[in-house]
This record gives sequence, C-alpha cells and structure tokens, in this order.
Amino acid sequence: MNIFVVNSGSSSIKYQLFKMPTNTPVCSGLVERIGLSNPTITHKVFVDGEEKVIKLTPEELPDHEAGLKEVNTLLTEGELAVIQDPADIQVVGHRIVHGGERFTTTTIIDAKVKEELKGTFQLAPLHNPASYLGIEVAEKIFVNATQIGVFDTAFHQTLPPKAYRFAIPNSYYTDFNIRTYGFHGTSHKYVTEQAADYLGKVESKLISIHLGNGCSMAAVNNGQSVDTSMGFGPLSGLIMGTRSGDIDATVVFYLVNQLGYDIEQVSNLLNKRSGMLGLTGHSDMRDITAAIEQGDEQAKLAYNLYAYRIKKYIGSYTAVLNGLDAIIFTAGVGENDALIRELICTDLEYLGIELDTTANSTRSKGIREISTAKSKVKVLIVPTNEELEIAQQCYGLVS
Amino acid sequence: MNIFVVNSGSSSIKYQLFKMPTNTPVCSGLVERIGLSNPTITHKVFVDGEEKVIKLTPEELPDHEAGLKEVNTLLTEGELAVIQDPADIQVVGHRIVHGGERFTTTTIIDAKVKEELKGTFQLAPLHNPASYLGIEVAEKIFVNATQIGVFDTAFHQTLPPKAYRFAIPNSYYTDFNIRTYGFHGTSHKYVTEQAADYLGKVESKLISIHLGNGCSMAAVNNGQSVDTSMGFGPLSGLIMGTRSGDIDATVVFYLVNQLGYDIEQVSNLLNKRSGMLGLTGHSDMRDITAAIEQGDEQAKLAYNLYAYRIKKYIGSYTAVLNGLDAIIFTAGVGENDALIRELICTDLEYLGIELDTTANSTRSKGIREISTAKSKVKVLIVPTNEELEIAQQCYGLVS
Repeated sequence: MNIFVVNSGSSSIKYQLFKMPTNTPVCSGLVERIGLSNPTITHKVFVDGEEKVIKLTPEELPDHEAGLKEVNTLLTEGELAVIQDPADIQVVGHRIVHGGERFTTTTIIDAKVKEELKGTFQLAPLHNPASYLGIEVAEKIFVNATQIGVFDTAFHQTLPPKAYRFAIPNSYYTDFNIRTYGFHGTSHKYVTEQAADYLGKVESKLISIHLGNGCSMAAVNNGQSVDTSMGFGPLSGLIMGTRSGDIDATVVFYLVNQLGYDIEQVSNLLNKRSGMLGLTGHSDMRDITAAIEQGDEQAKLAYNLYAYRIKKYIGSYTAVLNGLDAIIFTAGVGENDALIRELICTDLEYLGIELDTTANSTRSKGIREISTAKSKVKVLIVPTNEELEIAQQCYGLVS
Repeated sequence: MNIFVVNSGSSSIKYQLFKMPTNTPVCSGLVERIGLSNPTITHKVFVDGEEKVIKLTPEELPDHEAGLKEVNTLLTEGELAVIQDPADIQVVGHRIVHGGERFTTTTIIDAKVKEELKGTFQLAPLHNPASYLGIEVAEKIFVNATQIGVFDTAFHQTLPPKAYRFAIPNSYYTDFNIRTYGFHGTSHKYVTEQAADYLGKVESKLISIHLGNGCSMAAVNNGQSVDTSMGFGPLSGLIMGTRSGDIDATVVFYLVNQLGYDIEQVSNLLNKRSGMLGLTGHSDMRDITAAIEQGDEQAKLAYNLYAYRIKKYIGSYTAVLNGLDAIIFTAGVGENDALIRELICTDLEYLGIELDTTANSTRSKGIREISTAKSKVKVLIVPTNEELEIAQQCYGLVS
C-alpha cells in the first residue's frame, strides 16, 4: 500500500511516500515559497540505500494546487518516477496541528469532518487553514485515495482535567474551549512506543523530551499522555529556538502598560524574537554550542536556562507519575546535542537519573541507552519519525 | 526595645508592636478605608494572654497621616496605652513588597534610600508608593525611631540567573529589570529557618509552601532561596484565591485578538476573577471545602487543580535541589486545610514523601510533623509570622 504523508503549511508542502506495511520510505520532498517569488521544490528519491535529489525552481507556484501538481509529476514521470499514476496512492495522511477537543484520534476525512475541521481554525489560525487547503488539493489530485487526518494534539487528549484546565472561570473553557491541548503528539507517541518496546514493558512511566525548533515534553503513563508542557498554543513550556516558553503573564501586561506595546508586538516578541534567539542572537543550537566554545557568556547562560527549564519539568513529571522508568531525548537537538543532555541530566541522582557521559557523547544511529548501568532510570535517545508514525496510523486505520 | 511593624497599603495600615529581644507582641491593629467613607480602626492589646479589642469608627480619615495619628493616640493614651510617648518606639519596621534588584536585604531608610525606593515604583505600582507613604508618615510621628525597610523580594535575591531570567531578549532585563523577583520572602525565610532549627540541620534542602490568599513556593538550599514560583509580579505559579497562577500567554493573546478584551480586562480577569473564585465562585478555601462536602463537582475539580499544581512544583523543586529533607506547609490554608495537604502529598512516595493521615488531620498549634516515621522526607506544618520576622530582622540590624 502506498501512503503519501502531507504536511501543508501556509506557503509550503512537506511530503513523504511510504510503502506499507514494510515502513519503507520511497521518496520525500519539500515545496517552498508557494505564492511567493522564487518558489523551490526539493525532491528526494531513495533507491538502494542511496538518496537521489531533484531540485526544481519553477517560474511560479501561484497556489498549493500548482505545487502539488508539480509533485505529482515528479512522482509519476521521468527516470526517478516512483508510481505510474496518482491512482496508485491509496491513502493520503495529513498532519494537522490542532484537533481541538473534537479530534481525539486519527480520522478518515469526509465532507462532515471537513466541516468540523473549520471549527478548529480559530484555535490554530496560522496552521489549520493551511492543512485544510492541503486536504482540498490532495482530494483533487489523488482522487482515489482515502484522505486521513492525523492530529498533533490527539495523543494528549488523554490528559485528565487537572492537567488540561486553567484556573480561570469555567465559562472560558465551556464557551471558548480555552484549555491545554499540547502539541508534538505524533512524536511523543512514536518515541514513547519505541521506548516501551525497547524496555520490553508496556506498563511504564516515561518522560518524552522533544527538542527541535519547537520543544515540548510529555509525561506518559502506560502509553497514555497525562501531562505536557505546551498549552493552549505552542508558546508555553520549554525554551525554544525563538519562543520564550513559560513566562509570567505580568510581563505581557507590563510591556503593554509601561512600554506601550500593542498585543501583536508582544506576541511577535515572545513567539519570534525570544527563546535562544533572544538570549544569544542565534536560534540554532549548533551556533550556540560554537559560541560557548569561544567563551561567549550569554550563550552559556542561555544554555543553562534551556537545560534548567527541562530539568524542572523532569522533576515535575516525576511527581505526576510518582515514579519513572525512562526519560527519552528526541528530535534534532535532543538526538544530537550531547552537551545539553549532560547539563540536563547532571545532579538528578535523587530522581534516580545517572548519565553515562561516555555513552552520551558517542554518536550513533537508532535507539540507544546513555545512562549508567546502576542508574535506576534509563536515559534513552530515540530518533523520532513523525512521517512514519503518520503513515503507520493511517495504515492501521484502513487495513 | 519597642519595634513597631507597619504594613501600609493604598487605603490601609496594618501594624504590630513587639518588645524585643523577647519577641513579645504588645498590640496590633488595622486601619481601613483611609480616604474613603466609613473608615475603621481595629486595635488589639495583648494583656496576660488575653486580647482586648478597641474598635473606632472616626468620621473621617482623610489620609495616612490622620490614620497613624489615631493609632499613636491608641498607643499612648487611655487605659490600654502600651507606651507613654511616641519617642518610646525605637524602630519602625516597614514591610515593603518590592525591593527590585537594589534591595537585597533589610535596610535602614535614609534620604538616599527613600530616593532609591522611588525607582521601584514602576515594578509595583499598586504597592510600593503606599509603603513609601507609610514611611513618610511614620517619620513624622515617630520622629526618634530608626526607620527600616524589610522587603518581600529580598530573600529571593539569592536566586541564580538560570532561575530568575526569562527567555526573552537580554535588553528587557538590562534596560527594564524584567526578571523573576518572587514574593512572600519574609514568610519563606521565617518558616524555613524554623524548620531548619526543628530538624537540627542548617545544611538542608527544603521546599516551603505558603498557601494564603496569595500562594507561592520556594526551593531553599542551606538557607538560601534558589527558586520560587511567583515571578515578575505576584500572578504566576500556584493557583490562588482569585489569581490564575501559571497560564499560557497565548490565552492572553486569544482574549485580546479573538474576544476583543483590552489588556486591563485581561489583567483584571487573571488577577481578580480567576483562581479558586473563577473555578468555584468562592475564593475562601473553607467555603470550597464545604461545597465539596455537599458533592459540588466544580469545587472538587478546583481542589484537584490547586493540589496538582503544588504537586508539580514539589517535583520541580526536588529536581532543582537534587534531594529533599522536608516540605513545609504554612499560612492560612497551608496550616489549617488538612484535605488539601492530603491531596498534595498522596502518591509522592517516589520522591520520599509519605503523609501520616492521622497526624495530618489532628489540629494543634505550633510547628509539627505530619509525615510517617518511615517517610524519607519530613512533612512539616510551620505557622508563619511575617510581622515577628520583620521585627527580628530590624532588631538584628540595630542591636
């Protein structure tokens, strides 16, 4: 079965094609700058363990439909064609950021679901309309395929009310759905399942630490998410590339009342100019590590802040779970940044965590253990694969 | 030595007179509705273990000076006079909410300090101008006394940068002093010192949980505050009587952008209409306990939220301290609400915390232990006494 995974943004389409049930990635790619000047398409085909890349720079890609048509041509025509006809795609799996409270699981998209999806636009005004557009376009091009939605919030729909409710009047929850949703659910689900398999125990208390451009953590008890660090939106919790993470709301009031900011400026500051970028001038952790090596004190402070926030969440979720079998590092920074992992795991013996610094600084692929033999809690690195998780969920639903 | 402790608010003056070094409370009182209609003064004199109360309802108290003059009359005249002359007051200790980064310790107030105090007004526009007014008035009436400022933020000035900095651009810290300050410092200092004495160890890892109308927690390592739950202002952290505590800033943006609130309305909502009041209609925990007993589901949920937030901070601070000798409950709710203490301490065995439910539900005065004999971490109730702590700090400074 060919499952085509689509992640549609406001001016981009990210995609990957899998052959199931073998989990074989066939090709992947990225369409960028849709509707803007100088659009590009980067298309990669995986042949015999090798990656062949095609880079296109079309004159224009006025809309998502034009973009996906180009992708369809790449899939079906030329030397590197991977299918003969768009009808060979049996399933299109759409990554959708926000499922609200309506979508608690992976869902086949029909006319009724599409209508209901519109009800989530207000919760994720930047992301969900773009996903919706991706669905409409995929329906036109892959006419025979089953369209399926996989929601970034769904995994966290098992949170109990004490974890998802804010302490504001009830009507804001009942009338406007203001609550914690949490994101990165596909990744947290994937890596905690991988870890439970690795540990050989389904009944496990796990903390998943997803550190990419966006960062979040989840407390996972016996396969169910019971708490997570992102909230109503993707701003809260950990310090990220450009986002502040948790911040006292009084700061927002101060910026407006004392410095004359409008709310757009504050939102822009906290979402796009804060986090590691605001503290160091760099949003990429590799640049910050390089700066630390050159003795940059600001970079060092930022690293400490970043690690300290995660350490506090580890403690918090250990209390929530009343126990801990493993903590899991994943995503770009989590999988590759040995220094940050060391900073996080140092001085956590009381919680049962002891890092093996040699194993931690050894690079390798795949799932691996970086705690000492006597560490009560295992420290794992589990490479995430959100696209594969989406394909697997779709396959599970239709087969 | 007579030390007169003053807590001056925008329309009120709270006061208490101590004889030092015996820590003897002589009298206390509250002037209310200064500058408003129907002002009142409630004055209590402590004689031989009894409390004699005088209640005055003056026609008018146009300003703080008029209020403190009335208090001076109560102190010096009539049957229940406790001193002969205002000159008998050697020290006036002023509780000041915000010391900014300038005031890291209890400080004798002279002309220079008064000027510097004005620099903190912007950080606490509701509170610090009222404290300043209290100082000016006390200088006029108690002309011979040494005026001393005791700051609610001072105890937390030992926080390391990783705990007090927000992940926003550095200039907001360097130019506008936006950082975590923390409050209730006088209480956290008092109860953690009491607890360290009780435990017989100065080198201790303690978590102090102050639950009153306002609520906050502090992680205290060997007598030094290393983290605390209130931030730039007193809104963040725990759920309080009317304050939301921690909340995703995205909620603020949503209320403004989608519901058309202005920033004053949002601030008012989160500070005055949220917390336990917003969730249950009651801000007093006793009313909420009563509602729970009548099977009120909203009240039960609110209680769970309140306890859950505290439980998460206990975990977080255990990670920060990498160990834990005791957790301390204090202030009105912390000292008296057995149910909330039980909810908080249940299912924390992994952290070494085991509550003795019988001891927990037995009422008594003074410092006491409510953990089981085999609990690795002691659970203590330590009655707070901020006024006495202020008097002691003043005495320590002048003697």
